[in-house]
Amino acid sequence: MTAYDDTNVFAKIMRGELPSHTVYEDAETLAIMDIMPRADGHVLVIPKTACRNLLDAPPDALKAVALTTQKLARAVKAAFDADGVTVQQFNEAAGGQVVFHLHVHVMPRHDGVALRPHTGTMEKMHVLMANADKIRDALDAL
Amino acid sequence: MTAYDDTNVFAKIMRGELPSHTVYEDAETLAIMDIMPRADGHVLVIPKTACRNLLDAPPDALKAVALTTQKLARAVKAAFDADGVTVQQFNEAAGGQVVFHLHVHVMPRHDGVALRPHTGTMEKMHVLMANADKIRDALDAL
Repeated sequence: MTAYDDTNVFAKIMRGELPSHTVYEDAETLAIMDIMPRADGHVLVIPKTACRNLLDAPPDALKAVALTTQKLARAVKAAFDADGVTVQQFNEAAGGQVVFHLHVHVMPRHDGVALRPHTGTMEKMHVLMANADKIRDALDAL
Repeated sequence: MTAYDDTNVFAKIMRGELPSHTVYEDAETLAIMDIMPRADGHVLVIPKTACRNLLDAPPDALKAVALTTQKLARAVKAAFDADGVTVQQFNEAAGGQVVFHLHVHVMPRHDGVALRPHTGTMEKMHVLMANADKIRDALDAL
């Protein structure tokens, strides 16, 4: 498969070359707001280990991502008083992947409310900041 | 959250009360064909541990599911000469969940080919069997 390319935006975020709304961080993973959210509170869980996607990820990175994904699923459900949570993870362009560093989408869901289409429009900064605060508060209360 | 109910179809499959097309099994997980596939080769990764979804899953089950999901992602990509893989995991009805035992959808994807809609129509038995054979062969060759 294609080799990892460290010019992707998540690698830049981890090097501090691009800003992010980070809601969670531990030794192996971080979670940031998706700036084009398909639902309010849509977050991305990312391993710090350099890997392109699920196909080349080392086992330890996968395990850490799984545990952080659970933590964030619980947090976004609480933060947005959601009825459910949808998790998606895309591999290669044909699989839906746009940024080529492994990441897991975690989206709070409400009964009868569809995910918003992926329009490519960026959410307003103040909305992302307010939603990030809600998730941090929910993580603190877990 | 709602307690685990062991009358769900995956619990029945694991008790041998319902048939399945099992393509992979280890001490902690199994992988079976989705009988209403959204792409040829659509498989489900399931922990043997009784849990409703990501929200109540024990850490060890999550880690095992993550590793088996990677194995199956690699296998279905190879088996169907796919260009990518889409992974989805649904929590509670609002999140898209239909069977209330944790499971991860792993779907091989081809450039320009959308996932089929979830129609509720069962795939023909001989197609499921042939696709299961392809995946088992790919797992053996990994």
